Parts: sequence; C-alpha cells; structure tokens
Amino acid sequence: MQGITRLGAAVMAAASAVGKKEREGPIGEAFDIADKEDRFEQETWEKAESEMQRRCFCRLLEKAGKEAREVDMLLAGDLLNQCIGSSYGLLSYDIPYMGLYGACSTAAEGLFLGAALIGHGATQTVGVVTSSHYCAAERQYRLPVEYGGQRPPTAQWTVTGAGAFLLGNAEMSTDTKTDTPPKPRAVLTRGLPGIVTEMGVRDANNMGAAMAPAAASTLLRFFRESGESPAAYDLIVTGDLGYEGGAILSDLLASEGVHLPSAIYNDCGMMIYTREKDDAHAGGSGCGCSAVVLASYLLPRVVSGKIKRMLFVGTGAMMSPDSVKQGQAIPAVAHLVEICHRA
Amino acid sequence: MQGITRLGAAVMAAASAVGKKEREGPIGEAFDIADKEDRFEQETWEKAESEMQRRCFCRLLEKAGKEAREVDMLLAGDLLNQCIGSSYGLLSYDIPYMGLYGACSTAAEGLFLGAALIGHGATQTVGVVTSSHYCAAERQYRLPVEYGGQRPPTAQWTVTGAGAFLLGNAEMSTDTKTDTPPKPRAVLTRGLPGIVTEMGVRDANNMGAAMAPAAASTLLRFFRESGESPAAYDLIVTGDLGYEGGAILSDLLASEGVHLPSAIYNDCGMMIYTREKDDAHAGGSGCGCSAVVLASYLLPRVVSGKIKRMLFVGTGAMMSPDSVKQGQAIPAVAHLVEICHRA
Repeated sequence: MQGITRLGAAVMAAASAVGKKEREGPIGEAFDIADKEDRFEQETWEKAESEMQRRCFCRLLEKAGKEAREVDMLLAGDLLNQCIGSSYGLLSYDIPYMGLYGACSTAAEGLFLGAALIGHGATQTVGVVTSSHYCAAERQYRLPVEYGGQRPPTAQWTVTGAGAFLLGNAEMSTDTKTDTPPKPRAVLTRGLPGIVTEMGVRDANNMGAAMAPAAASTLLRFFRESGESPAAYDLIVTGDLGYEGGAILSDLLASEGVHLPSAIYNDCGMMIYTREKDDAHAGGSGCGCSAVVLASYLLPRVVSGKIKRMLFVGTGAMMSPDSVKQGQAIPAVAHLVEICHRA
Repeated sequence: MQGITRLGAAVMAAASAVGKKEREGPIGEAFDIADKEDRFEQETWEKAESEMQRRCFCRLLEKAGKEAREVDMLLAGDLLNQCIGSSYGLLSYDIPYMGLYGACSTAAEGLFLGAALIGHGATQTVGVVTSSHYCAAERQYRLPVEYGGQRPPTAQWTVTGAGAFLLGNAEMSTDTKTDTPPKPRAVLTRGLPGIVTEMGVRDANNMGAAMAPAAASTLLRFFRESGESPAAYDLIVTGDLGYEGGAILSDLLASEGVHLPSAIYNDCGMMIYTREKDDAHAGGSGCGCSAVVLASYLLPRVVSGKIKRMLFVGTGAMMSPDSVKQGQAIPAVAHLVEICHRA
C-alpha cells in the first residue's frame, strides 16, 4: 500500500475568487476577487462558477508574473456534474488539461499530484484550480435556493469560491540568481493519498460525519508511518469537516490514542464563516472552501513564517444525489499534503 | 507549455468486464468477464456499473498475481455524476484512491498520470480503472432507454464495460531474476496531455464531431514535437471518435499536411461493434469503450509483438447535460500515450 510520497514543489503563487458571503466573512478581506452578486456577470449559476474560475486563474497568472504558455499542465475539478465548472472555466487557456474528481478534496488531490509530478521531474509548472458555487451546488445536490428549504443544524454551506495554485520546482526556485520575483517560501514536502472509507452515514445533510472517518484514517496513517505527532505542527487543518465533522475527527483520533490539541487543529469550513451570524450552521464546505482558505489565508502565513509546518487534509464526500436516493451510504476520502515554510 | 512527457511504466496486467452487446460484438471473445443481462446482479444500472468495475479490478489482481495491498494507488473515474461508478465500485479495496474526470479520455488520462508517477519514481504500482454503462449513461445524458427515443446516425452507443490496468516500474520488471510472473512486454514510453478545444459543436448526439478537433490538436502537437510521422507506428488508435469523428480527424490532419493511412488508423468505437448489425450507428463511446478495447484486444497484440509501436489517443467530451441545455458548445480533450512492445 502506498506510503508517504515525497513531493517537492514550491507554491509560486496562489489566488482566490469568492462571492458576497465569503467576502463578508471573518477572513473575507484576504480573498483576491469578490463578486457582490455571486453572478460574475453571467446568466446562470453554472456559468458564474466557470467565470469565477477563469478570473481566479487569470489573477493567479498575474500574481505569478507568468503567461499561460509557461504553465505545463492544469489539474482541475469541481462539484458540478461532469466538472463543467473547470472544463468551461479554463477553456480559454491553451494549457494541457487533466480533470480531477475528488469532490471537496480536489484542491488537496491536485496539489498532491502536481507536486509529485514536479518533485520527481515529470514536469515543471502545474496549475491547480478548483471551485464550488453555493447556488449551483444547492440546486444540483439538494434543492434550488428559490425553494427556501430548511437546513438542519448539521448542514454545511457550500462556499462560492475558486482557488488556484501555481506549483513550480522547489529546487529551481532556491536559485538566488533568479530571485527577482518573490522567492517561494511555501513548499509542499510530503503527501499521503487517502483511502475511501464508508461508515454508514446516509444523511446528505451531514457531510461532516461522513468525511470525518476518512480524515482520521489518513491522519492516523500519516502519524504512524512518519513517526510525527500533532505537536510537530503549527497547524493541522482539514478541508471542510465543519463543526460537526471536526468534533467527530477529534473523538476518532482520541479513541486511537492521538490527541489533537484545539490550539493546533482547525478546519477551513469553520474559518470562512462566522457560525451564528452567517447562518452557516455546521460551517462551510465545497471544493472552493479549502481552496480559497488555503490560497489566501493560510499560504500567506506559511510564506511569512507565522506557520512553519502544517498539514493540509482535503476532505471529500464521494456520493452523488443518485447514489443517496438509491439508499447507498456516503463514501469519503481525505488526501494529506504537508506544507512547510522555507526560510 | 507542456511538451511530451517521458513516461516509463510497464503494463503488468489488464482486465475487462462488459455487457451482452459487447460480448456479441466482433471482438467480444477477447473480454475477460461478460454479464448477459448487463445488470451484474444489481438492482439499478448505477450499481451495476460499480459492480462491473469491482469485478473487473478483482480479475485484474488475479491476472497480475497481486493482492490489493501491493497496489500503491488507484486512479479511477467514469461518466456518472460525481464518478460514483468508481467511488462505490472500488470502495471494497483498501487502496489510496484518486478520482479523475476526463470523460471518455479517462483511461488515457489515468495511464498518463500513473505512468508519469511511476516512471519518475514517485510511486511503484498504480491501478487505473474506468467504466461506462449504456443504460446508466443514456438516462443521465439523454433519455431512459425505456422511453425508446430515436437515435440519429451520428449518435454513438455508450459501451457497457469496465477496463482496468496495473502499471508497474518498467525498469524493475526487466530484472530477469524476478521473471516468474509473465514478463511485462507492453511499456508506456511517452505521453502528451491534451488541450481542451471547443469548435462550436452543440449537438449532444454528435460527440465524434466535438472530439475530433481535440484528437487532431494532440496528434499534431505530438508529431511536431517528436518529429515522428504516422508511418512510424503500427497503429494509431483513438478512443471513441466513431465513424463520424474518425473521418473528421483524418480530414483535419490532412488539412495540416499529415496523412493518416487507413491501414494504420483505427478507433476503439469502430472496433467494438459491427456497424450495421449492432445498431451502433456511428460506433461505440464511453469511458469503457477505449478501456476494454485497449485492455483486452490491443494490449495482448502489443505483448505478442504483433503491434510494435502504437499511439493510444483517449478522447473525451467535457460537457454536461446542463451545459448543453444552457446553450454551450461541447469542449473536448484528447490525451496521448505511446505504447511499445518490449522484446
């Protein structure tokens, strides 16, 4: 079975685009782009999601000082059926494109694959892009927002957001002679792909409970194999377990003898909204959730050295509305990427 | 922009599972498993697709003489919303799982990524799995088959089939001391990921026309960069352009000065059914189409040396039913993998 994989790519730049609710949230000022109507001047929510991705990737290139032709490959995906958020969103860029489907773990999956390909010399520069849109996701997975359905306390709020990362060779970028652009200080060092777990959760309004066992599985495998403990990290952050899933994760780890201190653990779904004020219930979710929080809030802290070492654990629920209707429980997966500050 | 990537993985084994129509087709006897009711003893078409994948991967492990724990990673995907064919189909295997979405190009995408990761030393053994199911695809993309809708001549028939490949290190497997299992004779040598193209085709019943420009783009890039010509290959095979798309591809290449001799070119969608007899119209399609033809018909010919060098070009149409209904044209992508016989 796959053990920990050596990665070895630097984050050359990261960018984010969000909607109104995310801009108004507690870390809202960190995001690069926000559209106050969530429409990005498009006529449908699906087209809005694509346009959000397009603008986000455009901003990424600006921030990195790169042109599209300098990017070797895109790894991208989203929650929409057939991942149209990405295939249409990135269509205007003539860059080789490989589509991913990791549900809300897509950012972590893309970072793992991109950094593994770069770190082992298969390619040089990879763009990782993902997104989700509240209105597009609600009508696809549950009900159109116009219906005004009630959301139970365990429900999460799909983030309207797109995150994009430009990965490059970590070794190359230590070359001080080519230090004119800001030297990449955030490096993806190790990774561990997740095993899909399914623990019998059938409630499509409780993704946190479905995904927590996957996060526990991946973290336990990582600690066991690496010999590391949570205390070795400044931050262990999950993608979108939310308050419900985050609490379950801590319990599951404790039952295996691993204490996850609350000062070290956080979840992107807990960080992006103010729980009471934003009506977000159990927190944020969606491919865009972990992507925008990592891109615009966490990575700058790794770059500045405030966070020296972190584990980023993207979590995804791999069901569809059809599989839920057919009575199947919800499988989930969690991919881990270790991100370190480089002095 | 990404050029040709050196791969360097051997195909340790390949397996296929299909439905009744595929078994009765011109290459039907080549497939490992067939279910004469297409149901694989399941109560829904979606569950049947998952079960078909599960059995196919089980057979793959048997053929390779491997246990699940010896596989480092699965790269898998399918056409169903949220790729549930794969996430449920492979759930019973405790193997790290990374989901792909490349529509019908998924087999090629998985082979490219898996062989790049292995060839550059990021991992050792990767399983690539994909599937499609006629009845599940029809009701998701078009109409339930019970409706009895008419299919125009350009329509293709989604293959009921799952294909699985086990990739291992090409260098390791040349070690004659460990030659007890059949020595892998098929090697993935080079690859080129495709750029998404969209040429204005809006007809969801003419996937061949939508995908042909993507295949032309990738082949032209490959020939230009490698200096190879079609004559250097025993076979250039596309995934599922069918008769319509195959003809367009030849025209597009000819207009760029590249002659694709009919003796060298073929398409998995043309090979799997007998055009008139099987009511397949423009040919087969679906993730399973290129996967089962490659796994059970083409690879054995590479292994035997009948095919010395081939280009496998997986083609995928990246739209969704929603994007089509919203008036968007169909983007497509084609990923290329070079496969060579090793004496």
